[in-house]
Amino acid sequence: MNIAVAQSGGPTCAINASLVGVFREAMKHSTIDAIFGSINGIEGIVHDHLINLKTLIRSGYDMDLLRQTPSTVLGSCRYKLPDENEDSSVYKTIAKVLEHRKIGAFFYIGGNDSMDTVQKLSAYFTKISLDVKVIGIPKTIDNDLCVTDHTPGFGSAAKYVATTMQEIIRDSSVYSIPSVTIVEIMGRHAGWLTASSAVLHAYGEPAPHLVYVPEAHFSEKCFLRDVEQEMAKHKAVIIAVSEGIAVPEGVQSGMVDNFGHKYLSGIGKYLEQLVRNKIGCKVRSIELNVMQRCSSHLCSKTDIDEAEQIGAAGVKCALHGETGRVMVFRRVHNNPYTIVMEPADASQIANREKFLPREFLTPSGNNISDSAMPYFLPLIQGELHLAMEGGIPKHFTIQESILK
Amino acid sequence: MNIAVAQSGGPTCAINASLVGVFREAMKHSTIDAIFGSINGIEGIVHDHLINLKTLIRSGYDMDLLRQTPSTVLGSCRYKLPDENEDSSVYKTIAKVLEHRKIGAFFYIGGNDSMDTVQKLSAYFTKISLDVKVIGIPKTIDNDLCVTDHTPGFGSAAKYVATTMQEIIRDSSVYSIPSVTIVEIMGRHAGWLTASSAVLHAYGEPAPHLVYVPEAHFSEKCFLRDVEQEMAKHKAVIIAVSEGIAVPEGVQSGMVDNFGHKYLSGIGKYLEQLVRNKIGCKVRSIELNVMQRCSSHLCSKTDIDEAEQIGAAGVKCALHGETGRVMVFRRVHNNPYTIVMEPADASQIANREKFLPREFLTPSGNNISDSAMPYFLPLIQGELHLAMEGGIPKHFTIQESILK
Repeated sequence: MNIAVAQSGGPTCAINASLVGVFREAMKHSTIDAIFGSINGIEGIVHDHLINLKTLIRSGYDMDLLRQTPSTVLGSCRYKLPDENEDSSVYKTIAKVLEHRKIGAFFYIGGNDSMDTVQKLSAYFTKISLDVKVIGIPKTIDNDLCVTDHTPGFGSAAKYVATTMQEIIRDSSVYSIPSVTIVEIMGRHAGWLTASSAVLHAYGEPAPHLVYVPEAHFSEKCFLRDVEQEMAKHKAVIIAVSEGIAVPEGVQSGMVDNFGHKYLSGIGKYLEQLVRNKIGCKVRSIELNVMQRCSSHLCSKTDIDEAEQIGAAGVKCALHGETGRVMVFRRVHNNPYTIVMEPADASQIANREKFLPREFLTPSGNNISDSAMPYFLPLIQGELHLAMEGGIPKHFTIQESILK
Repeated sequence: MNIAVAQSGGPTCAINASLVGVFREAMKHSTIDAIFGSINGIEGIVHDHLINLKTLIRSGYDMDLLRQTPSTVLGSCRYKLPDENEDSSVYKTIAKVLEHRKIGAFFYIGGNDSMDTVQKLSAYFTKISLDVKVIGIPKTIDNDLCVTDHTPGFGSAAKYVATTMQEIIRDSSVYSIPSVTIVEIMGRHAGWLTASSAVLHAYGEPAPHLVYVPEAHFSEKCFLRDVEQEMAKHKAVIIAVSEGIAVPEGVQSGMVDNFGHKYLSGIGKYLEQLVRNKIGCKVRSIELNVMQRCSSHLCSKTDIDEAEQIGAAGVKCALHGETGRVMVFRRVHNNPYTIVMEPADASQIANREKFLPREFLTPSGNNISDSAMPYFLPLIQGELHLAMEGGIPKHFTIQESILK
C-alpha cells in the first residue's frame, strides 16, 4: 500500500521532525510503497496535490536538516471539514483521491482542529468500509491538547521563551531608574507557554516577578497593585503575560479600532499604557510574536527527538490496524524523565482544550508555583547540533512553485 | 596604578566580552594593581560607586560566562557630560574620585555618546595636568560609528536578525493564501542592521523581497507599488524595514497619540495597517524589539572574540601613554577576513554617525545589493560553545543590591 502524510495548523519547530518520524519509519516497512506528502494539509488530498516524499527527502542529511527547519515544509491549512451529514461532497472527493492513489493510511500532524479531521475522516471511512487508517500526530506550541502529557512543539517554544526571558531580564536591568517590562507570550486560552517563562526560577532567577495566564482571573486593579508591590522590591520589574488574559470588553473593541489589529496581539501594549498612565514609570512591552513558534535555532532536543518518535509510533499504530487514533505521550517518571507513547481516541482530543492546573499557580494566581517545575524542566532539555551555512542555520526547503 | 572600566549606552551581546578583554589584559601587567568596575557607566565614577573586579571575576570560567551574557553586567547610563566651560563641577568631582582611587586609566565601553565623554574627559585631564588616560572601546548594534570598519555588538545582532528573518520566512510561507510580513528592525538613522537581514540572499534565499532603510527616500506610494509587484511574484512577501525610515509628520504624531508609544517603535504596525487598507491582503508585522540586541544565545563568535580583543587593545593603548583615543577596527582583507585594531581620535567619532553607503543598496533603493555581502558575511561567522544549565544558557550575574 501507499501512505500519505500532511501538516496542518500553526507552525512549530517540531512538525518537520514528526514528518521525518513518519517517513523514516515507513521506509523500514516493505509493505509500504509510496510515501506521499500532501501539500497544505488536507487540502492537498482534496486537490490531489501530492508529492513523492522519497524524491524530496533523499538522505539522512536531508532528515537532519528537516529536524532543524521550523514550520511546515509541506505547507499548512486552517481547513475544517464540514459535518458529513450536512455536506458529504468533500468526503467523497477525499475517498476518491485516496482510493485512486492506493493510499491505505493517512497521517495528520496538527492541533486539536486537525484531530477533528482525524475523527471525522476515520468515522466516514469506517462507514463506507474504505480501508484507510487515519492517525493523528499531535503538535502545538500551546500544549493545550487533552489526554497527552504534553505536545510536540511545546518544549522548543518553552525553551525559546525561557531563554529569551532571561536575556530580556539582563537587558532590562541595566539602568539606574525603576522600570517595568511586560513580555507578551502566545496562548489564547491556556497559559502553558507563558508559565514556562517561570522555569528560570528553578535556576535562581527571581524574575519574572509576575506571571498572568488566562486560567486566573485578571483585574486591572490587582495588576496595578501587584506591579507597585514588586517595584518596592525590584528596580526592574519583569512581567510575563499571556495574549489571552481577559480584559474588559470595551478595551478589546477599542484596541481593534485604534490599533488596527486584533486585541489578542495587543494586551502587552495595553498593559504598558496602563502602567504608564497609572504608575508613571519607565515601561516597555515586548511581543515574542512568531519567534516563539519558529525559532528552531534554539529548539529543545528532547522535543525534536520526541516529535520524531511520535511520528514513527503513528506509523506502527496504523500498521497494527488502528484508525481514528491520536498518538499521545504518557509520563511514567520525572526522575529520570520517562515517557511512553500510546494511542488515544481522537474524540477525546478533537475540539477540546487542556488548561494549566490550578496547583501550577501560586495561591495569589499571579505567578507560577515551584511545584510546576518538575513538569516543565524535562521538556526544554538538550540542544541539536545545528548544521550551519556561513553563520546561519541551514534549512530544508522545497521550491516555492511546488507549494503553489 | 589602578584602572577603572565602565559600560554605557544601550545593551548589546558583546559589551561584557569587551569588559573581559580589559580585565584579562590588565591582569597581565604588573604595573596595574586594582581593576575597578564603575557601576552604571560614568555615574559610578561621579558617585564613587566602584567595585573591585578581581573579587567579582574570579576564574576563566567566569570570563567565559561573561562572554555569553548579554547587556552590561556593571549597569549602564545615558549620562552626557555638560560642556566643561559651562559647568565644570562634575569634572572636578570625577577628577577627585579618580585621584583618590589612584586610577591612572579609564576605559569607557560605549557608543558615540560615550565617545563624547571620552573626548571631554581626556581634554579636561590634559588641561588640569591630571595623568589619567581615557580610552574608548566602541560598541553598538547600530554599527553607526565613524572611522571603524564595524562595531562590536553589531555582528551578533546581525546574526540574530538574519537567523530570525530566515525562520520568519519559513513561518510566513505555510498557507496557500497570499500574505505580506513586515519585520521591523532597529536603526534610527542608519540601516546597517536592517540591511544585514539580506545576507540570506547569499545563501539562495529570495527573501527578504524588499528592504527599506533610513538612507533611502521612502514614499508610501512607491512602497505600495513595490509590495504589489512582489505579490505578483511571491505568495508570501517578506519585508525588512528600519524603525527609522521617514514617514509623514502627521503619521508620526498621530501614532504617539493613538498608540501611546513612540513613533519609532511603530513603523511596522503603521505599514501593516497601510497594506491592509490599500491592498487588503493578509498582513502581519513583527518587531524584533530588544531581542535583536540581547540574544546572546545566538551571538557571533567573530563578534565576541573581536569585542574581547578590542578591549585588550585599549589597555595596551593606555599603557603606551595615549589618551582621548577610541579603538577601531580596520579591515585589511575580506578573503581571508583580516582586521587590525588601532586607535583613532575620539573627536572623529564622538557625536557622529556613519551611514550605509549608497552602493550597498540596489539602484531602486528598496533592497540590498549583492556587492554588500562581502562586508556583512564575515561579521556573523562562528558560534560560541555555550555553557548551559538545565536547558538554558548560563549567565554571569551580580547581586541586584550591588547595582543599586
